[in-house]
Amino acid sequence: MDEIKTNWTGNMAFEADVDGHKIMLDAGEEVGGQNKGPKPKPLLLVSLAGCTGMDVVSLLKKMRVKIDDLQISVAGEPSEEHPIYYKKVKLTYLVKGQDLDKEKIEKAVRLSQERYCGVSYTLQQVAEMDYEIIYSNEEISTPSAH
Amino acid sequence: MDEIKTNWTGNMAFEADVDGHKIMLDAGEEVGGQNKGPKPKPLLLVSLAGCTGMDVVSLLKKMRVKIDDLQISVAGEPSEEHPIYYKKVKLTYLVKGQDLDKEKIEKAVRLSQERYCGVSYTLQQVAEMDYEIIYSNEEISTPSAH
Repeated sequence: MDEIKTNWTGNMAFEADVDGHKIMLDAGEEVGGQNKGPKPKPLLLVSLAGCTGMDVVSLLKKMRVKIDDLQISVAGEPSEEHPIYYKKVKLTYLVKGQDLDKEKIEKAVRLSQERYCGVSYTLQQVAEMDYEIIYSNEEISTPSAH
Repeated sequence: MDEIKTNWTGNMAFEADVDGHKIMLDAGEEVGGQNKGPKPKPLLLVSLAGCTGMDVVSLLKKMRVKIDDLQISVAGEPSEEHPIYYKKVKLTYLVKGQDLDKEKIEKAVRLSQERYCGVSYTLQQVAEMDYEIIYSNEEISTPSAH
């Protein structure tokens, strides 16, 4: 059994405790929040990226496939009517390395998406999901990270 | 469109960026991680708590119902087989205040669960969900928060 706890800290903000790790959540200023932390819904996309990312790195380790870096981006398109959920989700795996074994990398991603990732399985019930793998032998730049 | 990005930081750890807010994710030591941050799957429960929590505080504000504090706990029971998803989810709303308007608080929670919370709607597709509201006129103690 997994358990988490959240405490309201006033206004629209909540502080979550996940096994001792704290995460502040807040709404944007346009709906009365103060943007002190991520909005709740995009955390579904973070959960998805982490779930499939850990699947992929551990599967590649078992397959003895070396990669230098992995960046996973997730875009979610919200529905128009209440309840607002993600009706489309697009995952992009950017894999960096030299002489990458693309066949095994594709297999690892497919195994995660079709068999292992329970977050994917959950989101697939309401969202049209697809993914793309991009290979690079260049340094991955992360212009949006800072 | 909501977009998030995660970067692998080695081993099983990933750092997510959500609109500039950073969240470190990691696996537990039993599966090769270093517990540097929350595991990905419980983030679904955090997302749920934040989503319904913000619904409830904003609905109560519109209804002019005053509460002193709100703590939301979520327990998720994982499935036994791959993919591992939450097959049961239990939400507990602990509402603190004097002379609480229980009818309106129940209405706010019900509206969130049945109409507004898109995270609830998503999880409901795979999980048996239920919730409980506990009222208190005592100071809410949070022994697990520290």
